[in-house]
Amino acid sequence: MYEDVYGNVISSLAAENDKRIVLLVMDGVGGCDNDGAGTALQQAKTPNMDALAGRSALGQHNPIATGITPGSGPGHLSLFGYDPLVYQVGRGVLSALGIEFPLEKTDVAARLNFCTIDTDGNITDRRAGRIGDDVNKRVLEILRREIKPPAGVEVLFETVAEHRALMVLRGEGLDDDIGDTDPQAVGVPALSPARRPHDKSKTAKIAEEIINQVRKILADEPQANMILARGFAKWPDWPTFPQRYKLNPAAVAGYPMYRGVSRLVGIPVVSQPTTAADICAEAAAAMKEHTFIFAHFKYTDKTGEDGDLPGKIERIEEMDAALPALMKADPDVLIITGDHSTPPSLKAHSWHPVPILMKAPHLRGGGPGRFDEIACRSGEIGTITGKELMPLAMAHAGKLEKFGA
Amino acid sequence: MYEDVYGNVISSLAAENDKRIVLLVMDGVGGCDNDGAGTALQQAKTPNMDALAGRSALGQHNPIATGITPGSGPGHLSLFGYDPLVYQVGRGVLSALGIEFPLEKTDVAARLNFCTIDTDGNITDRRAGRIGDDVNKRVLEILRREIKPPAGVEVLFETVAEHRALMVLRGEGLDDDIGDTDPQAVGVPALSPARRPHDKSKTAKIAEEIINQVRKILADEPQANMILARGFAKWPDWPTFPQRYKLNPAAVAGYPMYRGVSRLVGIPVVSQPTTAADICAEAAAAMKEHTFIFAHFKYTDKTGEDGDLPGKIERIEEMDAALPALMKADPDVLIITGDHSTPPSLKAHSWHPVPILMKAPHLRGGGPGRFDEIACRSGEIGTITGKELMPLAMAHAGKLEKFGA
Repeated sequence: MYEDVYGNVISSLAAENDKRIVLLVMDGVGGCDNDGAGTALQQAKTPNMDALAGRSALGQHNPIATGITPGSGPGHLSLFGYDPLVYQVGRGVLSALGIEFPLEKTDVAARLNFCTIDTDGNITDRRAGRIGDDVNKRVLEILRREIKPPAGVEVLFETVAEHRALMVLRGEGLDDDIGDTDPQAVGVPALSPARRPHDKSKTAKIAEEIINQVRKILADEPQANMILARGFAKWPDWPTFPQRYKLNPAAVAGYPMYRGVSRLVGIPVVSQPTTAADICAEAAAAMKEHTFIFAHFKYTDKTGEDGDLPGKIERIEEMDAALPALMKADPDVLIITGDHSTPPSLKAHSWHPVPILMKAPHLRGGGPGRFDEIACRSGEIGTITGKELMPLAMAHAGKLEKFGA
Repeated sequence: MYEDVYGNVISSLAAENDKRIVLLVMDGVGGCDNDGAGTALQQAKTPNMDALAGRSALGQHNPIATGITPGSGPGHLSLFGYDPLVYQVGRGVLSALGIEFPLEKTDVAARLNFCTIDTDGNITDRRAGRIGDDVNKRVLEILRREIKPPAGVEVLFETVAEHRALMVLRGEGLDDDIGDTDPQAVGVPALSPARRPHDKSKTAKIAEEIINQVRKILADEPQANMILARGFAKWPDWPTFPQRYKLNPAAVAGYPMYRGVSRLVGIPVVSQPTTAADICAEAAAAMKEHTFIFAHFKYTDKTGEDGDLPGKIERIEEMDAALPALMKADPDVLIITGDHSTPPSLKAHSWHPVPILMKAPHLRGGGPGRFDEIACRSGEIGTITGKELMPLAMAHAGKLEKFGA
């Protein structure tokens, strides 16, 4: 993996001051045209954002890189200035973040899929017929009761959803040099977690023993009679957000995934609101004690994923109406953007660039009084990569020293 | 540090011909809006540049990377096509460049700060009360007289300004694996120049001996009674500009820093004018013998640093009026840009992108007849990194071979 030269230079230039930076993430805010009527952002009535746009810098960002559709984890790492191609999180850790499992630094987490195997041990359904949460919970309860943890290890199971669960091995001296057991195919047995041929992991042997026990314990289950484990990973040893930027950060986020990814980079969660009004009020309040606020609004993504264009427009307008409460606290630098686009026409995250609005004291001006994808693409900021947003905000807040004499 | 893949490819494609490239640097030319009246460049009357803009490509560049405010050294390296994140110059060498000290390849240079220490040897003022140039010169004179150079080494001191000075160790076989002695704190003693724990540098021991002598020599000084040394460095062993581009270059630059950074990459200084009229005339004259001219105009930066908006406007207009003398010599490719922005509203270098005008024979056209930050940000060149400018100029001058068959 290449070195994050840019991020390291930014970190070396970071300087503390009292200026406040607010990063307001409207999750999935970008979109596509809808039958010639424009994107949700174009169709929404946003008088407050439009007025702000007239005295802000506009632009757009590719969260990861051109053409790449971001997951929520990498999308947010990018907004936090952590190059997601360098700072890759194991799937096990992402699963733990998604349900806000209190992962400890020495834990090893893996994502589990329940699956169905036949009497020969060959997989017949890699998702166990997509069992519901109720079956998932019932089966995990059996596992918790019956499993005999190998010496020195605690084994924790948590429901995620449907056929998905989380397994955490807790103990001292555990490693994560452990292979996926999912063969990504049916008609064959699960793989061993030992990474052949070198087989050096002590923890892989522990994982193997647990999986063998699970198979016996679940033998009589009609669907979820086996597990497949993927992405064994430990909490990553990265420089924290406060270390990297000399900021005193706070997260205002109502959903587990975003609290989790905040915690991943050392941003403490100070409040868990979900409505736009509460988010803006709580972000404003957090500015008293903190120099950086990450505020997260989920519903622009959720409506996008549901294919609900009118809902997305309404949610954008909800945030616009709430905005004056945040503006009253007068952040020195305010960024409004998303972690990715979620066009209702696609009902999914997408690779489209994400619009950016950045209010800051030292701008060139000349932008239009409108905040949408079309206005943003010819704005002062141009098209950048998501990881460039934090450095730009730091610069505008006077928090970056000069590079070289 | 990562490899400069792009720069190496460009170098491998470079081909010689008779075409002339002129890089006219208006130092610090970019700016911010000034209370709704626009930037200095927007407010200046520049009929010659505007006419040129109508038949040129416009764009903007980030000299180092988004959000990073460039020092003069890295800003110019970028314009010369040397990625400043790869080609990093030690502070000692930058100090030597800034006063145009004739550094030799085997020299080791360090930046000195005079400081004040108490009777226990603890630092009480890291800048010795910011002594004036007169005290600086008087104390250096004492050092020159009293220092007993360690065997085989010559020790040279030069005034920079206020509390800042330059120390150069001259001799054979010197290394620069030497630590900073500035602890970046008061109430503690200066650090040893030996980089513990490995301590392998012969020259660090020499530096230590010199610093110990200095402390004794200056013991009776009221303020400047000790030195702190930073950024020990040797002249970097880089491919020169003529090697890299197969160009026969010349620098036309009136200020020491810019002559120094030209020399750093092997561009000889042929003339030292400071007014716009002289710069344009001398650049035109240099085109007779040279295929690349770097011409440097300082006052657009100086007025910016002074917060003097009318002065900056006037200096831009001065250059505009001088331009026809340069155009008469008909450079094949002419670039007008800056090494960074210096908004009078910030009184300092800034991170804002720098406008570019590039006159060249094979353009797409369609640009506005105006040269300013707003026109440039939607121009043909788009937003590039500073290091991409030289390759673009080389291409337009027909000096780059095709990549691959």
